[in-house]
Amino acid sequence: MSALVLDDEDTFKILIATDIHLGYLEKDAVRGNDTFVTFDEIMKHAKENEVDFILLGGDLFHDNKPSRKAMHSCLEIMRKYCMGDKPILFDIISDQAVNFGSSRFPWVNYQDENLNISTPIFSVHGNHDDPTGADGLCALDLLSCAGLVNHFGRSRSVEKLEISPILLQKGSTKIALYGIGSIPDERLYRMFVNKQVTMLRPREDEESWFNMFVIHQNRSKHGATNYIPEQFLDDFLDLVIWGHEHECKITPARNEQQLFYVTQPGSSVVTSLSPGEAVKKHIGLLRVKGRKMNLQKIPLQTVRQFLIEDVTLANHTDLFSPEQPNVMQKVQAFCQQKVEEMLEEAERDRLGNPLMPEKPLIRLRVDYSGGFEPFTTMRFSQKFVDRVANPKDILHFTRHRESKDNAIDFDMLLSRPSSEVLQLRVEDLVKEYFQTAEKNMQLSLLTEQGMGKAVQEYVDKEERDAIEELINYQLEKTQRYLQERRVEASEEKIDEELRKDQRGGERREEVKGRRRDEERKVARGKRGGEGRDEMRKGRRRGEGGDEGEMR
Amino acid sequence: MSALVLDDEDTFKILIATDIHLGYLEKDAVRGNDTFVTFDEIMKHAKENEVDFILLGGDLFHDNKPSRKAMHSCLEIMRKYCMGDKPILFDIISDQAVNFGSSRFPWVNYQDENLNISTPIFSVHGNHDDPTGADGLCALDLLSCAGLVNHFGRSRSVEKLEISPILLQKGSTKIALYGIGSIPDERLYRMFVNKQVTMLRPREDEESWFNMFVIHQNRSKHGATNYIPEQFLDDFLDLVIWGHEHECKITPARNEQQLFYVTQPGSSVVTSLSPGEAVKKHIGLLRVKGRKMNLQKIPLQTVRQFLIEDVTLANHTDLFSPEQPNVMQKVQAFCQQKVEEMLEEAERDRLGNPLMPEKPLIRLRVDYSGGFEPFTTMRFSQKFVDRVANPKDILHFTRHRESKDNAIDFDMLLSRPSSEVLQLRVEDLVKEYFQTAEKNMQLSLLTEQGMGKAVQEYVDKEERDAIEELINYQLEKTQRYLQERRVEASEEKIDEELRKDQRGGERREEVKGRRRDEERKVARGKRGGEGRDEMRKGRRRGEGGDEGEMR
Repeated sequence: MSALVLDDEDTFKILIATDIHLGYLEKDAVRGNDTFVTFDEIMKHAKENEVDFILLGGDLFHDNKPSRKAMHSCLEIMRKYCMGDKPILFDIISDQAVNFGSSRFPWVNYQDENLNISTPIFSVHGNHDDPTGADGLCALDLLSCAGLVNHFGRSRSVEKLEISPILLQKGSTKIALYGIGSIPDERLYRMFVNKQVTMLRPREDEESWFNMFVIHQNRSKHGATNYIPEQFLDDFLDLVIWGHEHECKITPARNEQQLFYVTQPGSSVVTSLSPGEAVKKHIGLLRVKGRKMNLQKIPLQTVRQFLIEDVTLANHTDLFSPEQPNVMQKVQAFCQQKVEEMLEEAERDRLGNPLMPEKPLIRLRVDYSGGFEPFTTMRFSQKFVDRVANPKDILHFTRHRESKDNAIDFDMLLSRPSSEVLQLRVEDLVKEYFQTAEKNMQLSLLTEQGMGKAVQEYVDKEERDAIEELINYQLEKTQRYLQERRVEASEEKIDEELRKDQRGGERREEVKGRRRDEERKVARGKRGGEGRDEMRKGRRRGEGGDEGEMR
Repeated sequence: MSALVLDDEDTFKILIATDIHLGYLEKDAVRGNDTFVTFDEIMKHAKENEVDFILLGGDLFHDNKPSRKAMHSCLEIMRKYCMGDKPILFDIISDQAVNFGSSRFPWVNYQDENLNISTPIFSVHGNHDDPTGADGLCALDLLSCAGLVNHFGRSRSVEKLEISPILLQKGSTKIALYGIGSIPDERLYRMFVNKQVTMLRPREDEESWFNMFVIHQNRSKHGATNYIPEQFLDDFLDLVIWGHEHECKITPARNEQQLFYVTQPGSSVVTSLSPGEAVKKHIGLLRVKGRKMNLQKIPLQTVRQFLIEDVTLANHTDLFSPEQPNVMQKVQAFCQQKVEEMLEEAERDRLGNPLMPEKPLIRLRVDYSGGFEPFTTMRFSQKFVDRVANPKDILHFTRHRESKDNAIDFDMLLSRPSSEVLQLRVEDLVKEYFQTAEKNMQLSLLTEQGMGKAVQEYVDKEERDAIEELINYQLEKTQRYLQERRVEASEEKIDEELRKDQRGGERREEVKGRRRDEERKVARGKRGGEGRDEMRKGRRRGEGGDEGEMR
């Protein structure tokens, strides 16, 4: 182990971070700059530690269409830290045209002779900054086009994935870097179940590679197929870097079934006032030598403190009871005292940490079950407006469900951020429309799935043209179909033909998807080219696999 | 003259273009790529002619917040053409921290040791892509931060301008490059009238400089103070490069009063179907040696053809008269024949120009005065849908005003692009509100001017926060004012104090503006520094000025 901390010509040093969410709450007078300040800190750590490269796990941006300010700040910070004279000491031996095929400059930025890159960034996209719209571009594509990011893990098919790793070599150490940019969990789940996810492996010296995989999906189960079980992942992997989940669980955890390790760095900014976000934020300094690794945790200094505590009023009947006439005042005073204590704790913790923002985030969850009442928080907020970064939502009232009915939990619903509520409503609306509309009233040309997706893009990604594009696409498809069949232009006939088209459509799309994949394969291997032909499909690790080498 | 066409070590070669309007109509199925294709052509000319630099006159982008696609295409084209090993043969001898003070990397991109720039771009911003919002950023700032553009001519004061030129030297030739990014015409007009526009000049060898000025304003008079008369510009200038006006008048025209030349390159894309846009589009290859110049016109090959013609129905009474029963059909056939002729002309013109898009823009202006009627154009459009790029608005019906009443010319109004109509309406709405509202109903905290500006930003620039920002600014200002005066919190008193504040506000803002300018002066001159101290205010050229040297 200790040997790994010693840097030598065979040791990769990689800075690992994820979910930086640039631009989150950028309009907030107190918290507006938090994401930019912390991104600067992360990049500074990379520079100070002279890492070989930075590996990001998605959601670099909070908004699918980052504001001009967010994009500007990002460009500024990247240009400041990624460029310079430090030599790059590792090679890429895979076919870069395959790894970065979606870029107009399909090669790694540090090999571009017009850019003097000292610290390359490799990144997959997240669910916040994924490709959208007719152009299929995402925010990382702008950074990639500006020569500041190497965007990998992009998939073009919605039915199957064939992941060709970036093959990196430093001295005698060889890393195969796999990645999948965020795609809807259900879709990826289905692809795994249908065995449509293939991880290609280098043919030569199969056991000599350290296999790393970057993924940005739900890790915890949000529904039957709304997450990716670790067991789905190939067991030849050595380390999985899991983005998307905001809780810092960066210390690699061994999956005893698959015999790989999983590190979940967590976000570098608190985007919800939930317990997972209160865990101290870290990034990782990963060293890889041969097939050994070491992950050093680096605590982030600039992250705004977040303290969360629960109180159950019914546990304090020595202080107040629901029957007392002035119970409300007493409960308020009690809560105020709690927040004061939390503020004191925050201040102690902040001592000697000059980089930490002054005002912490505070959340007090008050369980008022047992006859207590919640109180209005306006005056309460006023007391902390100068000392707390989130004065308006310090308190969160909860209640044990006392009857077991199936009613909607409005408390839960209302605690969601407003955009989520909106999204829920619009989606529900569309679904409801399709479920309840008379059969003959339904839109004949638009499928529920297509419409739902377009509406979601419209809401989530500010993709203003999503719905129009869907309609145009369907219209064109329909026109083509009708032309091919030379349908006489009687309305009745058209309706009839359309019903045929609806049924046949899905199958045909599938065939087209497959054809597109074939074409892509032929077009491959133009640049570099050593790696690609040497790939073969991933094989389960043999029984006698030498996992003893790990860590 | 001929000597100037010979390139030597003392001759600057500068590619001049303006109003490229990247992203204009980017959603249009036919014309969507026009701006990107032509920008690529422009950059190719720059490369093929091995120019020293490219000089753009503003409105590189059509939208203040360019779409991801527009920004991506721009980055792609710039990276392709601006980077490379061609050595840069001219120096900048002014203080770059002054010239590019608004950038986070306040030096010219080709001197950045991390960027291998072959062809630098210098640009002012236009009215379409000007700085907006709380961050005061514009689209060029993103390109500047990405190291691809040198954005100059930015002003921070709204009351005075002190323009410090970029001083360029190649061999024995010295250019002083002045610029003003677009600001509202009325404001700049006022500043000129109030003698608040100062152009600094190098103290040494004053007469040895070739003085160039880039401006992006109305050149033709749109109202008493809604343009910039050429006479306002300093007469020590040698060449003015005028952006904003879309008609190509690139051949330098001598202003006999001011004794300078003006070149108006015009836009590289047709954004309105008016006669000025039908003039063949060019960019310029400017050579400057000593104080001589030569401007070579380069016709653009990729610009979509635009043909415009006028017909007056009353001049063709041999063919039809308003009294005939089938006059409408005859008029339609006549117009159709005209368009066919224009299409034939376009095709002839396109012969041997493989880069020209196939479908031209066609506009036929039909004067139907004298008892004729306009006809619906839907069926007419259908006939040309496969051959004309703008089938829907080929025809434009006009009529001589027959009575001299003051009624609104709805024909004129309706022929405006829809966004302009919208803008007009919202602005009118605000103005009307302030003019007609009862005095005691008016908003006390928001001035008409401020509100008007915020609404305009909201509409024009999709600056969604403009109104909120104005309100916050005014609230803060008011609170500060009230705090300073320690007003007792009775509503009546506050109202009274507010009225005082409204009256005093304008004067105080002025003082603050001035103070800010002072601060800026002190902060200057940190980088480079030779040029700045050597500047003195522009002086009118002496009677015996040797303008004989010019051209």
